[in-house]
Amino acid sequence: MTTPSGWDAWLAAEAAARDEAGLTRRLVPRKADDPTIDLAGNDYLGLSRHPDVVAGAVAAARAFGGGAGASRLVTGTLTIHAELERALADYTGQPEALVFSTGYHANLSIVTALADRTAYVVSDAHVHASLVDAVRLSRAALEIVPHSDVTAVREALARADGRPTLVLAESVYSVLGDEAPLVELAAACEEYGALLVVDEAHGLGVHGPGVVHRLGLAGLPHVVVTATLSKSLGSQGGAVLGSPALVEHLVNRARPFIFDTGLAPAAAGAALAALELLRGDPALPGVVRRRVTDLAAALGVEPPAGAVLSVPMASPQVALAAQGAVLEQGVRVGCFRPPSVPDGVSRLRITSSAGPSDEDWARAVEVLVAVVKEFRP
Amino acid sequence: MTTPSGWDAWLAAEAAARDEAGLTRRLVPRKADDPTIDLAGNDYLGLSRHPDVVAGAVAAARAFGGGAGASRLVTGTLTIHAELERALADYTGQPEALVFSTGYHANLSIVTALADRTAYVVSDAHVHASLVDAVRLSRAALEIVPHSDVTAVREALARADGRPTLVLAESVYSVLGDEAPLVELAAACEEYGALLVVDEAHGLGVHGPGVVHRLGLAGLPHVVVTATLSKSLGSQGGAVLGSPALVEHLVNRARPFIFDTGLAPAAAGAALAALELLRGDPALPGVVRRRVTDLAAALGVEPPAGAVLSVPMASPQVALAAQGAVLEQGVRVGCFRPPSVPDGVSRLRITSSAGPSDEDWARAVEVLVAVVKEFRP
Ligand SMILES: Cc1ncc(COP(=O)(O)O)c(C=O)c1O
Ligand SMILES: Cc1ncc(COP(=O)(O)O)c(C=O)c1O
Repeated sequence: MTTPSGWDAWLAAEAAARDEAGLTRRLVPRKADDPTIDLAGNDYLGLSRHPDVVAGAVAAARAFGGGAGASRLVTGTLTIHAELERALADYTGQPEALVFSTGYHANLSIVTALADRTAYVVSDAHVHASLVDAVRLSRAALEIVPHSDVTAVREALARADGRPTLVLAESVYSVLGDEAPLVELAAACEEYGALLVVDEAHGLGVHGPGVVHRLGLAGLPHVVVTATLSKSLGSQGGAVLGSPALVEHLVNRARPFIFDTGLAPAAAGAALAALELLRGDPALPGVVRRRVTDLAAALGVEPPAGAVLSVPMASPQVALAAQGAVLEQGVRVGCFRPPSVPDGVSRLRITSSAGPSDEDWARAVEVLVAVVKEFRP
Repeated sequence: MTTPSGWDAWLAAEAAARDEAGLTRRLVPRKADDPTIDLAGNDYLGLSRHPDVVAGAVAAARAFGGGAGASRLVTGTLTIHAELERALADYTGQPEALVFSTGYHANLSIVTALADRTAYVVSDAHVHASLVDAVRLSRAALEIVPHSDVTAVREALARADGRPTLVLAESVYSVLGDEAPLVELAAACEEYGALLVVDEAHGLGVHGPGVVHRLGLAGLPHVVVTATLSKSLGSQGGAVLGSPALVEHLVNRARPFIFDTGLAPAAAGAALAALELLRGDPALPGVVRRRVTDLAAALGVEPPAGAVLSVPMASPQVALAAQGAVLEQGVRVGCFRPPSVPDGVSRLRITSSAGPSDEDWARAVEVLVAVVKEFRP
């Protein structure tokens, strides 16, 4: 029988195994005035600290208070949520939007409200943990297909056998920064009567109104979009974008929406201000895309579809050492190692951002080029 | 085969079934200056709009920006998160705290990071949707026991058969407002080597540092606490309170922590300010508890353990009509109907709050007494 010390012993054994594998992660708090150039986070447009975004958060907190105070279904829907939903839908060219307290909640909600044991889900191998968890929670039958392999998706759809079917993809993938073949996936879904769920977490903002919009897929009945407010919009929260019928369904059936407190007013206000900035300055996404293209050229790697640049390294140790060398020179980049890389290849993950000044950006590029040359000869 | 119109048809059929059953919910946005007295939300201490809490949100947004910008494991841990974690742990008498972006994430995390297919979970029948989802996501074997039935918990524990075992309860239950037999549950868990997970969503703040603390159970190795920042603390977010080993385990293993953007600075700042108010004014929780006790007496129902007063009504229709009558007089209360009541009994759900002025509170009591007399003779 497990005893309290049984749980303690188990935690200790797990910790020892992590330590031995060199995989233990620790949280390193970042100060408000941290001087390092952050090319590890996902504040792609540098909007989190934009004065208008901060002012949006401040005004909303002053008007509505620190929290929404209740579930959206009770008294936790505020006019600022409704305003944000209208702005999100308009900007992305979708009929309606529903806002959640995290992007994770949005993904859990869309899948579990549509799919149950009787459903069939065809998922790209690289989708985000929140979509993986969503499918597990839904108990739907799951078929994982190789990354961005439309033929494999079609073959899987041919086995749907009349079941209600979802296909899961991201518009721009988080780790490798590549773009999904959305036009082909949407066509396959239309043909087979499936619903394509596209997570635009890394597409919205970097691609202005998103990749789905750019490809003319916004508003199609067989394409649903999820997004997060926590990356390009510099805030916190998530959204589902789709038809009024879908939104009404989520309001009535999505447990991570119904049984959760509404998004904090300040987060809604910040995201709303970010959307206004994007609408007012359609050139903003171009800054981050130009930067990432230039950086890719300087590093001699393929330019990514989004703002995330993936630089494969020889081993986890080399990747870590390179990350450390970059940090020593005041630039923070991410480091992805197994098990959190889908293909087992360790890499630096550099997120281009419109945030740093031209000067800081130039300095960061210089540092990165030198270090990558040293560690990846 | 399901066609796109197949999904459309399915959504329409679901909507029609809801409409027919009179169960369709719609979101009603609340204005910043809504004059109704809100006794439906969970801002139990009225702190969401307290000037210090708003100032905490404002200062944090100004210092750190609109969002944390990344996962807590990348660059999304801010010094204000660390400060909040220290303050939460100190206030609740726990060794450590870990902050999540919602209370839902905290519950999903604690269960899924500890339990997998090989685990065994004994859950009270009334626990929150987030704990129910957490168990489903973990794939652990689940035994649901009758509400607050310690004998049933012990019988279930006797069948654990060596599996790692969790027991799930809330300190104060959300719907009925009753308190769990935590001392007895903790003793059973200690005896059987199980870990007791106590959700203090409705206990923290209303009971000051929480029911677990009041009962002398804080810091015990076989008792872990989860909490939300979105109710008494007037903000958004969640927390797990427990040992350093447990927190380190969650940091390394809890997917809804690892793969989620850190809590927005403003939400952390608001919760931190609320904790400071609570520490500075230990009498505050007494206000809401006195109000609910007085209200219960005035309505002729049992006083609850928390701030939530449950008033059973004859039918869903009567409950709805009573809610409407109260609202017409400027007071908003909740209305719980099947299927969202664990025992099938429709009820008004009135949350006492320290928020309204004495005058407003007196008026609300008057309205409630009159309406309940009329609808529940
Ligand atoms: C692709 C993708 N989807 C969803 C999420 C979750 O969004 P959030 O952080 O807002 O919960 C993330 C990252 O955090 C992501 O990268
Ligand atoms: C008992 C309980 N646990 C957890 C939660 C989830 O907390 P949050 O709203 O912060 O996600 C709630 C309500 O929202 C709750 O009532």
